[in-house]
Amino acid sequence: MRTTVGIIGGGPAGLLLARLLHRAGLDCVVLESRTREYVEHRQRAGMLEQGTVDALRAAGAADRLDTEGLVHHGIELRFDRERHHLDFPTLTGGRTVTIYAQTEIVKDLVELQLAEGPPLLFEAEALAVERPDSASPVVRFRHEGREQTLVCAWVVGCDGSHGIAREAFPAGAVRTYGHDHPYSWLGVLAQVPPSCAELIYARHERGFALHSMRSPLVSRLYLQVPNGTRGEDWPDDRIWDELAARFAIDGDWTLRRGPITAKAVTPMRSHVHEPMRHGRLLLAGDAAHVVPPTGAKGLNLAVSDVRILARAFTELHTTGSSRTLDRYSELSLQRVWQAIRFSYDMTRMLHAQPDGDAFDHRMQLARLRRITASRHAAAELAANYTGLPLPL
Amino acid sequence: MRTTVGIIGGGPAGLLLARLLHRAGLDCVVLESRTREYVEHRQRAGMLEQGTVDALRAAGAADRLDTEGLVHHGIELRFDRERHHLDFPTLTGGRTVTIYAQTEIVKDLVELQLAEGPPLLFEAEALAVERPDSASPVVRFRHEGREQTLVCAWVVGCDGSHGIAREAFPAGAVRTYGHDHPYSWLGVLAQVPPSCAELIYARHERGFALHSMRSPLVSRLYLQVPNGTRGEDWPDDRIWDELAARFAIDGDWTLRRGPITAKAVTPMRSHVHEPMRHGRLLLAGDAAHVVPPTGAKGLNLAVSDVRILARAFTELHTTGSSRTLDRYSELSLQRVWQAIRFSYDMTRMLHAQPDGDAFDHRMQLARLRRITASRHAAAELAANYTGLPLPL
Repeated sequence: MRTTVGIIGGGPAGLLLARLLHRAGLDCVVLESRTREYVEHRQRAGMLEQGTVDALRAAGAADRLDTEGLVHHGIELRFDRERHHLDFPTLTGGRTVTIYAQTEIVKDLVELQLAEGPPLLFEAEALAVERPDSASPVVRFRHEGREQTLVCAWVVGCDGSHGIAREAFPAGAVRTYGHDHPYSWLGVLAQVPPSCAELIYARHERGFALHSMRSPLVSRLYLQVPNGTRGEDWPDDRIWDELAARFAIDGDWTLRRGPITAKAVTPMRSHVHEPMRHGRLLLAGDAAHVVPPTGAKGLNLAVSDVRILARAFTELHTTGSSRTLDRYSELSLQRVWQAIRFSYDMTRMLHAQPDGDAFDHRMQLARLRRITASRHAAAELAANYTGLPLPL
Repeated sequence: MRTTVGIIGGGPAGLLLARLLHRAGLDCVVLESRTREYVEHRQRAGMLEQGTVDALRAAGAADRLDTEGLVHHGIELRFDRERHHLDFPTLTGGRTVTIYAQTEIVKDLVELQLAEGPPLLFEAEALAVERPDSASPVVRFRHEGREQTLVCAWVVGCDGSHGIAREAFPAGAVRTYGHDHPYSWLGVLAQVPPSCAELIYARHERGFALHSMRSPLVSRLYLQVPNGTRGEDWPDDRIWDELAARFAIDGDWTLRRGPITAKAVTPMRSHVHEPMRHGRLLLAGDAAHVVPPTGAKGLNLAVSDVRILARAFTELHTTGSSRTLDRYSELSLQRVWQAIRFSYDMTRMLHAQPDGDAFDHRMQLARLRRITASRHAAAELAANYTGLPLPL
């Protein structure tokens, strides 16, 4: 099989890239190792920056998002039994975020791609990218019981942090910058209307808690837990009691409880692999960088990588210039490092630090107090949260 | 001897408090353990917030400051061989800072106090504060070869981080929050006109460097050095070479060299002792909190403590209400913790971290880049640097 852009990975990054390239008249193929059923149901992020929504609209993939997405005008910070609202439109000159689950984006993009093309192969497991620095790199993959090859002009690895695309970078051609945070999130889905209109980020001596939602009927909640925690150590009642303790404020507020339908533990990592390009192989999304979920940046970073890539390939296709493509790594990394910084700072400000002392604890409170007292500090948080502009 | 407010320590905090109380008609005495010669020549800070300048003016102690002080409209950040100017008036709505050495403030205040009162005793070494929770605490001190007592209605400890006032807090009545940074500053005074119009804060792989000045003819320069460094390990040439390397940029700029007249190594500590009051004993300045010098906050925090205290005593004197005095610790600590946070963040952003890895290094650059790219991030730095308002 031959194509112009071979895309490894049928998550939101790979699917959106395929959609944008297809609409720009570029030929591409998406290889996804899992089944359609699987990719449409893995629980991931759900907070979309304005730029992510805009990109999905530009891709003609936002019909359901525009109907079902929940537009949020801010977040709530809780600490010291107080609640503080940050109003994003006021702080950013009109920007908002939208709650719409990654699984739903994937469903929408899969449906469109299967209906309109380009080719999307499920259960097509990429095995290796060969000759990335030649003029025609090859993706070897296994599909329908046999090994096949996809000969490409370009290969884009959208295959996540454990994907195989990055392995094709020669030793020494990629450098990893990383920090592993000493705690994890226990995330649950619950069949109960959210107890809040906006996300609640709570800092508590017992640990961080986040109240989010997937829809008006489904709540998404997270608890900071020690690394190595297993979901089964946390019966449902214990989860609800702990959430209620961490969200508690002086004043009237009740956490609605309901049946928990999913439970998973996620580690908190900040990782960047540089550069994001080697020869004709480019990385996008988690394949190149991982952020802790505190800043809700993972999906949005993947989309911004893809937006730059789509622009770069379109420019090459229409004008013959590889100018943006040649700067892809540099451009993407500018935004990546800002998201890494923001996610790290949000994480450190809100989580109980296992190695922290009373000084660190007071510093966290001083940071939170400053955000609630200073227009500039609040606006800076809001600008990062709603998404920094594309560096183009 | 008897007085209303016994003040331990004749540094800028104690002297300014005495001056403000005296002008408000309150009776006080200042005990200073050192000689006049000594206190007028110990090298300390020199960057005054607007509020500090205002307080000195309100005390009628700013004649020379207003003539000789250098008004600065910003600072320069250097990293990655680039220079970036932060313009304070633009970022803060008109605020500036003033360079005027602490030694000069002390000279001005000593001269005024000796001329106009209240009593200022040099070589009067405070030994202990007795009965701080009684109605008349007593300061025992040694002066002119014999032990004496100062019976007070109130005692204020302005006697620095190693002073004796804090020791009068009963065990368990004070809690210390602290962080010791794993590096020090080697500071030098040089008889050479400054090579810059504004302070330069330089982040370099080899370590932090700061270019400041004491006057149009005297430069003040600092180098990050490992803890335990001795001044004699650094001959003058080595200091100038290292400074030149850390300030180097792409583009035209030369570091002027000249004779070094003073050299000292200062550790970098962030410490807070809470509360700042026990009974009728109150602490102000370094006696209650120490910041690393990176944010230039130490002297300014001492002055803001004193401003709150002067207001509190005046209120008590004129209206009989102890409302502000009773809230002194709470009010001061709000501002203290914000200065601790700011100084800590400036320190961490600009110093090479001995225990840091490549990730931390990139994070520092991301922080600095953000400050140069975001109006809000720059304005937030400028607001903290030029001084947060008094919490009254």
